[in-house]
Amino acid sequence: MKIIVDCFGGDKSPSANVEGAVLALKEHSDLSLILTGDENVIKTELDRLGYTGDRIEIVHAPEVITGEDKPTDAIRLKRESSMIKAIAMLRKEPDIAGMVSTGATGALIAAATLRIGRIRGIRRPAFCPLLPTMDGGIVGICDSGANVDITPEMLVHQAILGTAYLRNVYNVKDPRVALLNIGVESEKGDDLRKTAYPMLEACGAINFVGNMESRDLLSGKYDLVVCDGFSGNVLVKSTEGTALELLKKLKKDIYSKTIYKLGALLMKKMFMEEKEFMNYHNYGGSVLLGCEKTVVKGHGSSDARAVKICIDQAYRMSAGAMNAEIEAALQQL
Amino acid sequence: MKIIVDCFGGDKSPSANVEGAVLALKEHSDLSLILTGDENVIKTELDRLGYTGDRIEIVHAPEVITGEDKPTDAIRLKRESSMIKAIAMLRKEPDIAGMVSTGATGALIAAATLRIGRIRGIRRPAFCPLLPTMDGGIVGICDSGANVDITPEMLVHQAILGTAYLRNVYNVKDPRVALLNIGVESEKGDDLRKTAYPMLEACGAINFVGNMESRDLLSGKYDLVVCDGFSGNVLVKSTEGTALELLKKLKKDIYSKTIYKLGALLMKKMFMEEKEFMNYHNYGGSVLLGCEKTVVKGHGSSDARAVKICIDQAYRMSAGAMNAEIEAALQQL
Repeated sequence: MKIIVDCFGGDKSPSANVEGAVLALKEHSDLSLILTGDENVIKTELDRLGYTGDRIEIVHAPEVITGEDKPTDAIRLKRESSMIKAIAMLRKEPDIAGMVSTGATGALIAAATLRIGRIRGIRRPAFCPLLPTMDGGIVGICDSGANVDITPEMLVHQAILGTAYLRNVYNVKDPRVALLNIGVESEKGDDLRKTAYPMLEACGAINFVGNMESRDLLSGKYDLVVCDGFSGNVLVKSTEGTALELLKKLKKDIYSKTIYKLGALLMKKMFMEEKEFMNYHNYGGSVLLGCEKTVVKGHGSSDARAVKICIDQAYRMSAGAMNAEIEAALQQL
Repeated sequence: MKIIVDCFGGDKSPSANVEGAVLALKEHSDLSLILTGDENVIKTELDRLGYTGDRIEIVHAPEVITGEDKPTDAIRLKRESSMIKAIAMLRKEPDIAGMVSTGATGALIAAATLRIGRIRGIRRPAFCPLLPTMDGGIVGICDSGANVDITPEMLVHQAILGTAYLRNVYNVKDPRVALLNIGVESEKGDDLRKTAYPMLEACGAINFVGNMESRDLLSGKYDLVVCDGFSGNVLVKSTEGTALELLKKLKKDIYSKTIYKLGALLMKKMFMEEKEFMNYHNYGGSVLLGCEKTVVKGHGSSDARAVKICIDQAYRMSAGAMNAEIEAALQQL
């Protein structure tokens, strides 16, 4: 299994990306990696980590795409960037199964959509990040920002993509799929939701369980939520943001009084666990579903461990029969 | 000041609504209330509370609108319901300043939009609930679900409505208005957001500060967020839902070990404060902005204190020069 890691563009790049790559190699003995980016910098990082193996190949790419670059310009003008070089190799070389990037989201979506083939029948790839649920499970959100203008057909496609992903990569048997809406009744929402509801109900390839209000995202009652990229983005970021803000507030309040500090000392292990539970890095990146090859987008703020988890995801996505299952489901429509 | 309280339709109606009314009267000596609903039941509640004053008038309305009623049918067919009777009186009688309801949201929006006059220039009223920010302030979200299909002009109107509300009712001097979007850069989002951005920037009546990502809602950097009703609904409910789920998890984890219970005992006061901080009932109902008269929609789960806070809101909204300010701002457009 060969996977490319775009080593630049994240907040902690390239050190987090290179270290994440080395960590992933330790876990998967049949994995080899291609790292794209400034060759000298990557070599220095590998030296620093004491890596002496032969399962890493470096492909020199001196440019970096940033959030300031317009996605379409980035593709056209920054061909020597770590991201675009990775995408080009992923497209061209049959033995490369997938890629991981922590770089600019817009450029990655554009490059993946335009340069990597899509699964037949899929109009646009969609992001599917995961969040932890309160019963110890996970929930996928598809789409979380790749497509802000969508059609009811695309919502059905997203349900099929996410179902195959959860089944193949996370062993969720028969993922319960919900439609994000402003109420649970079937006639709720705008035209998009009203049209999509019966189409999702009629789709034999998925287990549609009805509408979901955003307040129930973490309840554990759903495995996958389908939505347009705009409201999906609002949903994921507000859930992450609220959790982070509350943890920060809790910490601040604890430090305000000695007796609270004492109490918190007794609960230290618990608070550490809560923090880990809410650390979205633990749940991997936003995979881009619907491409012929695996693309995993890590958070811009990914550290080495988070990058390693993204490489795990790419490894497991590429190893399974996910795309074959998606094609079969699309043909049934 | 005369305000109507729809006493039926909430989860804890009518007892919470009647008790909330009595609590509000204690606070505002110049307030009188009209309670709509089953007369005998309301009388029994007032007796139970030992209310003997003369500032409550009961208007008998034997029917109740529920979440199962289609909004348009509810208006047409349930004229004898506590909500529709309240709306009809609010429309007809000049001395009634506003109303509070904890009943079905859809029916209330439809009835208010169709039966109560709108402020000249406003096409559709919009909800504006408030949430607490981490620096001890509040943030308004407009719209949170009244209008799922909207135009860029309506986003500007919502900015004007919310600005006047925060200024007049909460003494926020120059509310910082943000546009909910999937990124902070001005060119982010779909056509609706891209068109609305320069219009908001050009509007002299508001203090537009740019795009906001949902993760920053509670940061205290913004006083008002404008959005379509669909994503606004997702935003508010996911924020409330995440906070509630995390508190529940914390509580469960505390009870899992004796040492945690001991620690929590030392922090009891702090946890009570956190709980109060996150209790959205403390921040009042979703006011419906843009009507000629005040309409406050309390949460369906409102208890007596929450109903009382909604009545406070209606009192303060009706007392100010809010609507005059809105009309002036609209004329400047």
